[in-house]
Amino acid sequence: MSNITGDLALFNELVEALLNEEDKNPVADRIEADKLYESIDLSLNNSAMVDDEFKKVLREVLVSTPKTATNLFFNQLFGGRQGKAVLGDLLAVMLNNSMYTYKVAGPQVGIEQEIIRQSCDLVGYGAESNGTFPTGGSMSNYMALVMGRDAKDPSSRAEGVRKPLIAYTSKESHYSNAKNASFAGFGRNNVRYIEADKEGRMIPEKLEEQINKDIADGFIPTYVTSTAGTTVLGAFDPIDKIADITEKHNIWLHVDGAYCGSLIFSEKYKHLLKGMERSDSFSYNAHKMIGTPMTCSIILVKDKKYLHGSFSNDADYLYQTDGDDFNLGKTSFQCGRRNDALKFWTLWKSVGTDGLRDIVDQQFYLADVCLEYIRSNPDYTLYSFDDSISVCFNYKNIDPVTLCTALYEHQITVVGFGSFNDDTFLRLVTINATNTKEDLLNFFKVMEEFVDKNPEKLV
Amino acid sequence: MSNITGDLALFNELVEALLNEEDKNPVADRIEADKLYESIDLSLNNSAMVDDEFKKVLREVLVSTPKTATNLFFNQLFGGRQGKAVLGDLLAVMLNNSMYTYKVAGPQVGIEQEIIRQSCDLVGYGAESNGTFPTGGSMSNYMALVMGRDAKDPSSRAEGVRKPLIAYTSKESHYSNAKNASFAGFGRNNVRYIEADKEGRMIPEKLEEQINKDIADGFIPTYVTSTAGTTVLGAFDPIDKIADITEKHNIWLHVDGAYCGSLIFSEKYKHLLKGMERSDSFSYNAHKMIGTPMTCSIILVKDKKYLHGSFSNDADYLYQTDGDDFNLGKTSFQCGRRNDALKFWTLWKSVGTDGLRDIVDQQFYLADVCLEYIRSNPDYTLYSFDDSISVCFNYKNIDPVTLCTALYEHQITVVGFGSFNDDTFLRLVTINATNTKEDLLNFFKVMEEFVDKNPEKLV
Repeated sequence: MSNITGDLALFNELVEALLNEEDKNPVADRIEADKLYESIDLSLNNSAMVDDEFKKVLREVLVSTPKTATNLFFNQLFGGRQGKAVLGDLLAVMLNNSMYTYKVAGPQVGIEQEIIRQSCDLVGYGAESNGTFPTGGSMSNYMALVMGRDAKDPSSRAEGVRKPLIAYTSKESHYSNAKNASFAGFGRNNVRYIEADKEGRMIPEKLEEQINKDIADGFIPTYVTSTAGTTVLGAFDPIDKIADITEKHNIWLHVDGAYCGSLIFSEKYKHLLKGMERSDSFSYNAHKMIGTPMTCSIILVKDKKYLHGSFSNDADYLYQTDGDDFNLGKTSFQCGRRNDALKFWTLWKSVGTDGLRDIVDQQFYLADVCLEYIRSNPDYTLYSFDDSISVCFNYKNIDPVTLCTALYEHQITVVGFGSFNDDTFLRLVTINATNTKEDLLNFFKVMEEFVDKNPEKLV
Repeated sequence: MSNITGDLALFNELVEALLNEEDKNPVADRIEADKLYESIDLSLNNSAMVDDEFKKVLREVLVSTPKTATNLFFNQLFGGRQGKAVLGDLLAVMLNNSMYTYKVAGPQVGIEQEIIRQSCDLVGYGAESNGTFPTGGSMSNYMALVMGRDAKDPSSRAEGVRKPLIAYTSKESHYSNAKNASFAGFGRNNVRYIEADKEGRMIPEKLEEQINKDIADGFIPTYVTSTAGTTVLGAFDPIDKIADITEKHNIWLHVDGAYCGSLIFSEKYKHLLKGMERSDSFSYNAHKMIGTPMTCSIILVKDKKYLHGSFSNDADYLYQTDGDDFNLGKTSFQCGRRNDALKFWTLWKSVGTDGLRDIVDQQFYLADVCLEYIRSNPDYTLYSFDDSISVCFNYKNIDPVTLCTALYEHQITVVGFGSFNDDTFLRLVTINATNTKEDLLNFFKVMEEFVDKNPEKLV
């Protein structure tokens, strides 16, 4: 029905146009949300579209889509483009395997398992460890929560949740913790948000106080998330001290490293994850610090029996050959599952573990460039701390919400804002390792120029 | 850090090799699972790899990965390659947007919403409907289960599951129903598997009997899955009759159309979905019948307030501009989310709704080709029925498990087996719409030749 060679040629033509456009306009020409449908013909119709018209509208879509790979995109906890990872993901589209069985995924199973095995070694988990590729950081946290629930209250799997199970996390943790508690039958109100210190790290003493209070009140402390890289400040909860508490009370400890768990690759910064080998599960997103295309999330479990216990299911029509270790559907939430491993493997294979270390370390170097710039310039107020790739600041006391919206609407740069305690500020994320010192200094330059020349747009 | 142009050139070179290999060997040379790691160098090491060696190992991986796009792959509920959908997914890799906010996804939000709006129209849902793109059919069913739970027992969201909630599905439904009941706090034992008739369809009278019994026993009937295309036989539960019961008892009705919900595009076959507009939610996988790359799952909800009620969450650091209708993270399980919509949109935009109809109808035509062949040949026993793209049969009474394993191991064709009641049989899925009548007749030819020439391999 379709000539794939022709479609690949069209892909190459459109990508060339996209790359040129990225060079020319690193920030996309923004279409106001309420004018979207009148600006581009996104409509789907009964009849086929003539090839030339199809190409034209597709080009319009590409040009007006926010550009996440350029050196002026700092808005999110991802950005940039690692070529070898892009290569792997493009190939995954062509191969289109499903990761549930060895019969249909073949060596891709080994690719996934090799990443998991090496990652477990880096975390310091032992021979019983294993893992899987969830669909993102929220799903990683969810799988950990379900395992923690089933470990503490094994009857919940067959009979349902009937007990007052409690989950703990810090006030600075990711919002999926609240949603997940609802999904898994705990209920949102049964999440305790533990206070953070002045640098955004969970205070272990407050955690233990709360656990003791809950036990006294007849609740069942079940699960703790320790965050490695909080969403706003990029702070690291003290895993080692938290593990002292979870081990004492027999509570599942998960390390949510969606943002900064990739520090397992850095000799220089992995001390921020001290104690991680004492956790029960650990997750990180290679589509964040490592820079693969979305999504590439990995959850590691110290004892794989919990992964099997909570997620396996028999299905004769599906698991027809080869052993359980090769039929990965037995340890995943999903049935059919996209190949999210190949892109990470092509990058890792190509640059080596040493190359991944360099990718991670580069981001801290870029953050230091920013910190130095900000600290040496009295027009700035700094709100973030060392050892973080989230650089938080305000410029000339301009309202950060107004400023970052204006920067976006005028195609200057894409950056977001965040809040901690009573402060709100710009949050610049130095997560694109393909950026250089000059790229970051350029960010400050274009922002300052915009502010100084357009005071009327910032009131 | 990386020259993307060079990596794109390498992609093109490798794809050419892959397409040639598919022509030459439509079934991959299978590596035994226990010999995988000694056959290909999948290891990840500290040092970077020289480009030539990297290319060599990547080529080996591609050649030995099971080929899902050829005319001899019938194993799974997907297969083939729709060129315009491949184009869209390759572009999605390059764009690398996350679908949570309009700020970062821009017109891709409109692309997703246009697919959802048109799909809701085809199902017959009204103005209050909406939907999202979950990560697969299991997740679609899970989201429906959570919405059904929260609709019946609103306190479960905040306070946790504390009541004996019951879910219903047929014995022939997908295994995710059991897993999901565990994940959502119902418990696996609180799923009732309703008997199916001799063609594999849920018997509505048995459903109502069970509901009445549960009410009498103090349970709370909460959720029913009606399957549109069961996993083995491809059967359709009678939605209209099931809706009579769920409406009467105020129970959430979900239509699991992961496999065959794409019949919404077929004038000729959509009668198999009669009553679908009475359901509360409806899901289908465009990566199955429509033939997009993995994954492209869509869940539609008749009243979007349930989608918001169960899945929304405030996150100031994320949802910074534009309204809720454009910030899709407010209605998804995930936070960061891959763009799974573009591939479907490029195909739909290009071939039109009429083209999607042709893709769907072609699969029933191919199934009819197979049924006719089997019925006219006394060496075959047929186990499946009309109006299904799962063609189930045995040949010369050969054990189907032995046969399909031998066909796979000898690179003849990739096909699976299934069971219904006491019978086990080969299951040929005519889901690759790029196949022709000749491709299907060729399947029978190569299978018969293999059997007739290799009797010793089938004992």
